[in-house]
Amino acid sequence: MNALEERIMKDGVVKEGNVLKVDSFLNHQMDVELFKWMGEEYKRRFAGKNINKILTIEASGIGIASVVALEFGVPVVFAKKSKSINLDGEMYTAQVESFTHKNVNTVIVSKKFLGPEDHILIIDDFLANGCALQGLIQIAQSAGATVEGIGIAIEKGFQQGGRMIRNLGYQLESLAIVESMDAANGSVEFREQ
Amino acid sequence: MNALEERIMKDGVVKEGNVLKVDSFLNHQMDVELFKWMGEEYKRRFAGKNINKILTIEASGIGIASVVALEFGVPVVFAKKSKSINLDGEMYTAQVESFTHKNVNTVIVSKKFLGPEDHILIIDDFLANGCALQGLIQIAQSAGATVEGIGIAIEKGFQQGGRMIRNLGYQLESLAIVESMDAANGSVEFREQ
Repeated sequence: MNALEERIMKDGVVKEGNVLKVDSFLNHQMDVELFKWMGEEYKRRFAGKNINKILTIEASGIGIASVVALEFGVPVVFAKKSKSINLDGEMYTAQVESFTHKNVNTVIVSKKFLGPEDHILIIDDFLANGCALQGLIQIAQSAGATVEGIGIAIEKGFQQGGRMIRNLGYQLESLAIVESMDAANGSVEFREQ
Repeated sequence: MNALEERIMKDGVVKEGNVLKVDSFLNHQMDVELFKWMGEEYKRRFAGKNINKILTIEASGIGIASVVALEFGVPVVFAKKSKSINLDGEMYTAQVESFTHKNVNTVIVSKKFLGPEDHILIIDDFLANGCALQGLIQIAQSAGATVEGIGIAIEKGFQQGGRMIRNLGYQLESLAIVESMDAANGSVEFREQ
């Protein structure tokens, strides 16, 4: 087991409905030393990729992306959730459905900060059905940017998002892939990597 | 001028209505190397303070707080904006008015992650009228936590937030304090520190 898998075993909480709560170290309280390890691991897994920018989405992706960006020595751009429907044409936009919050957000990235010259690493905390990732990929494509890779903290391997993204040909690296979990006894099984 | 002030002069854009756009390096695209410098500067300014946790608010505060937390070697907790009115009593809450978005958000922090044992540094990107800061201070007080200091990137010195917070006795350190700006010629004047 790697450092993230060990931490999930220690501090993750399995809830009914295939919910894995990791808010004590990943997405409410944040263990930035763990994020530093994640950055080193992504650096190893994406070695040889020419990455000049990291793209993520608010809010939980921002902390991880910022610490990972320090490892890569590149800036971060985060897609913002927008309530505004009057966008002024200076923004790339995508619709992102949230199953957690049961709503659809428009996410936006300013055209100033993403373009054909960019070779990006997409970073996010969770991958389940893949809606947020599809939105970020769509924004990257609108910008003509090259997606060099995708780094996820925790992938729910029993949902279809990861397989779909890999089938599209992207190098997707999830540091922990949960194959199954059981709220009754709190157990979590990881995919061997 | 320090590194942040120089960057504001170089890449900040002054808009009508006392708006200072710094989205190319602070709160949409993020220069994490600059955040690292900010962390070192806060470490110097809050030397001798016994800080064990950083508190910030989503979304723009998270990137800065995460990189600053690496410098301090402590975890971050970020207050979440919540649309839910059915909170389960496991959360500290505060109302925060946003002048940018013309609305009021309820922000929440889980009671699990803040308590009387915590000595916190509050971090945020902007300070103008001080509404977001007041919400975070209120949450810290509800938790019985000690606010050891407040670190802001850019303070609008011509609005009342900074004076009010300092009058309450908090050590508030803003790395750039804008005394005045002029959209007509793009000029920005900083307070001498």
